[in-house]
Amino acid sequence: MKLSAIIAKYNLKAPEPLPRDFDVQSVRPLDRAGRNDLSFLNNKKYRGQAKTTAAGAVLTQTPVDGSHAIQLVCAEPYAVMARILADFHPEPEYPAGIHPRAVVEPGATVDPEASVGPLCHVAAGARIGKGSVLVSNVHVGRDTVVGDHCRLHPGVVLYHGVTLGDRVRIHAQSVIGGDGYGYAQTGGIHLKVPQIGGVVVGDDVEIGSNVSIDRGSLDDTRIGSGTKIDNLVQIAHGVDIGEHCLIVSQTGISGSSKLGKYTVLAGKVGVNGHVTLGDQVMVMGASVVTKDLKGPGKYAGNPAIPHMTYQRQKAHIRRFAELEKRVRQLESTLEEKEEFP
Amino acid sequence: MKLSAIIAKYNLKAPEPLPRDFDVQSVRPLDRAGRNDLSFLNNKKYRGQAKTTAAGAVLTQTPVDGSHAIQLVCAEPYAVMARILADFHPEPEYPAGIHPRAVVEPGATVDPEASVGPLCHVAAGARIGKGSVLVSNVHVGRDTVVGDHCRLHPGVVLYHGVTLGDRVRIHAQSVIGGDGYGYAQTGGIHLKVPQIGGVVVGDDVEIGSNVSIDRGSLDDTRIGSGTKIDNLVQIAHGVDIGEHCLIVSQTGISGSSKLGKYTVLAGKVGVNGHVTLGDQVMVMGASVVTKDLKGPGKYAGNPAIPHMTYQRQKAHIRRFAELEKRVRQLESTLEEKEEFP
Amino acid sequence: MKLSAIIAKYNLKAPEPLPRDFDVQSVRPLDRAGRNDLSFLNNKKYRGQAKTTAAGAVLTQTPVDGSHAIQLVCAEPYAVMARILADFHPEPEYPAGIHPRAVVEPGATVDPEASVGPLCHVAAGARIGKGSVLVSNVHVGRDTVVGDHCRLHPGVVLYHGVTLGDRVRIHAQSVIGGDGYGYAQTGGIHLKVPQIGGVVVGDDVEIGSNVSIDRGSLDDTRIGSGTKIDNLVQIAHGVDIGEHCLIVSQTGISGSSKLGKYTVLAGKVGVNGHVTLGDQVMVMGASVVTKDLKGPGKYAGNPAIPHMTYQRQKAHIRRFAELEKRVRQLESTLEEKEEFP
Repeated sequence: MKLSAIIAKYNLKAPEPLPRDFDVQSVRPLDRAGRNDLSFLNNKKYRGQAKTTAAGAVLTQTPVDGSHAIQLVCAEPYAVMARILADFHPEPEYPAGIHPRAVVEPGATVDPEASVGPLCHVAAGARIGKGSVLVSNVHVGRDTVVGDHCRLHPGVVLYHGVTLGDRVRIHAQSVIGGDGYGYAQTGGIHLKVPQIGGVVVGDDVEIGSNVSIDRGSLDDTRIGSGTKIDNLVQIAHGVDIGEHCLIVSQTGISGSSKLGKYTVLAGKVGVNGHVTLGDQVMVMGASVVTKDLKGPGKYAGNPAIPHMTYQRQKAHIRRFAELEKRVRQLESTLEEKEEFP
Repeated sequence: MKLSAIIAKYNLKAPEPLPRDFDVQSVRPLDRAGRNDLSFLNNKKYRGQAKTTAAGAVLTQTPVDGSHAIQLVCAEPYAVMARILADFHPEPEYPAGIHPRAVVEPGATVDPEASVGPLCHVAAGARIGKGSVLVSNVHVGRDTVVGDHCRLHPGVVLYHGVTLGDRVRIHAQSVIGGDGYGYAQTGGIHLKVPQIGGVVVGDDVEIGSNVSIDRGSLDDTRIGSGTKIDNLVQIAHGVDIGEHCLIVSQTGISGSSKLGKYTVLAGKVGVNGHVTLGDQVMVMGASVVTKDLKGPGKYAGNPAIPHMTYQRQKAHIRRFAELEKRVRQLESTLEEKEEFP
Repeated sequence: MKLSAIIAKYNLKAPEPLPRDFDVQSVRPLDRAGRNDLSFLNNKKYRGQAKTTAAGAVLTQTPVDGSHAIQLVCAEPYAVMARILADFHPEPEYPAGIHPRAVVEPGATVDPEASVGPLCHVAAGARIGKGSVLVSNVHVGRDTVVGDHCRLHPGVVLYHGVTLGDRVRIHAQSVIGGDGYGYAQTGGIHLKVPQIGGVVVGDDVEIGSNVSIDRGSLDDTRIGSGTKIDNLVQIAHGVDIGEHCLIVSQTGISGSSKLGKYTVLAGKVGVNGHVTLGDQVMVMGASVVTKDLKGPGKYAGNPAIPHMTYQRQKAHIRRFAELEKRVRQLESTLEEKEEFP
């Protein structure tokens, strides 16, 4: 793709006339891009690199003085970069149809434009929508519905009674619809409470690898459209996640908790059961949410408190030794006074 | 199932004569149950909902005044609810026999009443007991024994030399018997220590999805009967867990540690290696156990300490700013005295 | 194997003449070894057991007085024990060739001395090296390279464009090469940033079960030779791990962070993105690394600080109540002075 074509397609502000047009070879980071590569400046931290980069052209919000690269100005350089990357690296294609080494049970419905790869197993009553790809070794349980243009990577397991919207993307080995962790104590044992709810996943959801999303106990577990879930996340029964949330790796959300829209849980966050987080709540990494949190707002700590308060408490701990010294000083001053009043 | 039949089967105390009998449609939460549904009151918090519920009947420990629902009184409403749910939603059945697309090696023994689903692989020397179900794509390693009436969900991997008791239930993608993490430092490298122990799982154990339970280094890793393990839990080599424990999601237990009976590790707990937790120890979420803990007892924090002490320490941190203020006050009082003694 | 043969093979210092030679039955812990077993003393803590052990012989750095066991002295008893265990328990063998129930696409190259087990799927362009074993149900994506003498356990998923060195060992259900978690905010949605880098894994790396290692965003994610990764670990896009590191269970490393050589992250550690840890850094369990850490050095806490400082802060918290008491004492002393100057 010619640089001039990219400029036209994405409506970028570039010097006119263009000092040099070229076939863009690839998109590379500032410090590793070459004369025929495109790069991008997304983080002020890298402004120095943007000056010295050997890249042929750079996507940026504001032009960088003194750079030899052609400055391509746009409001959202990172988003434009993402779109250009998708032009350069289209998704791998998979042939429509059912691989002869897949097992599709009678009573399952696979759209003729869907691709069911080798060693997949689609159970009776399941439906696979148009353009969806089950790469390899995917299990789709009874009566589970996969929407259109979904992509399920190797080893994904959807239990029975799960519903995926359109354009859902699930990475390898993730499990949707396992039983929630529910037991009733009786006679010295933990009696299993049957988990009869389902899981409903909206449109444009992406789920990482090795994720566990349990089915609801009585009602459904819900993941709102546009939400993105990272690897190794635990989502317990009856959790209800709003639209466009970000749930970063190794976070766990306990049963029946609710998240609003545009809420972010950074890595390794824990959320207790039956807790509600509002819209645009941002919880810092490794925090533990024990109570409802209002949005918008930034929280941290265990238990999670407003981020400013948390920072202050951390500073307190660092000042303890000094405070202890001051108390010792006061004590000795008073003692002296006792002795020599 | 008629309400009257449920009352008789579970020996519930109900008004006589029954104001109204009906075919119970389903079991639903108080706030969503309808006239032909059964609901339950298990948590005082929901007593308000129990008054206004539209449910036809409600399981409860003590009758709720002013409710229109028929009050069904019993000592353990949650356990009864679990049993009724199981009546309404029996486990899906799988046909006995070996699916033609499963691979069962010569020398493996599959009970004629067991079900080995498509794309499963049962290695030589393995044994699958009566009534057990390998749903799909389950791997059973060499000489591994699966007891009777077990249910292994898609993608479960049992390495060689693992033994499961009866009625064990393992959710998708969990791995039992991987090598423990053991290396000897020598000559600048980490030399692998062969892991030659096995894993022994008792009866009535349930294991969530994406769980890792490693085989023992020299001896076996053990999971006691009746213990329930949530998703994404790590259990290292040589761990010995007693009966009826609850290990909540994302908890990790390091090598050779021991848990007594009825011990509970809440979510995201970490347990160091070679540590012993007594019977009925309860460790709060996100705590880190670094030393032996006596049971019964409730613990929290990193390192885990008695829960009361932990709560006190948390309160201390919140009082730091105030203490600092008091010290400043003392200092200025003393300074004044210096100036105007 | 005769004890005398073991002594000769590993050049152990033993009493001469040997008081008793015997066929060594197995290697067992000190407290469970019998007359025909070999045991080892690796930890001073077990010196008491080394005195009373019934083992026929004991590997030790310094002889234990008063023990009936034959003392086999060597500089590294644990490493020698590991080698003897490997003699006694050689790795299970798998037949060379492709199992008839595996799916190997045209254009894939499988060395004739490699073993591709049942239900494996090797995509076009992939290469499997000499002596490597894909135990069962392993997925190898397009153009992915598996070196020589690797062992991939059931359910391992290698996406496209992944490269493994030689003697790499990956445990069940681990995923190498899933998409990194990268989105650009635009117009109220999280736009996926295509992840076009690969994953490069060095030689002699071992990776536990249920691990997620994401592919790089633009460049590769890298795991250095000799590094060992435990179960349920998350390694994000663009992470660069040096040689001979130890990454213990449930640790998570965020995008673009770098680790030097011989660096150790204990269990449940979190590492923020774009952070650099030097050589021989040791981070204690459950810590969170938020800034660059110099090596060598031991760190702990959230945020991770030098271990000594961390220990001091922990002690401070424990002294808070006492300090509060001392302030109260000072206050009352001063009040008394006010009243009775």
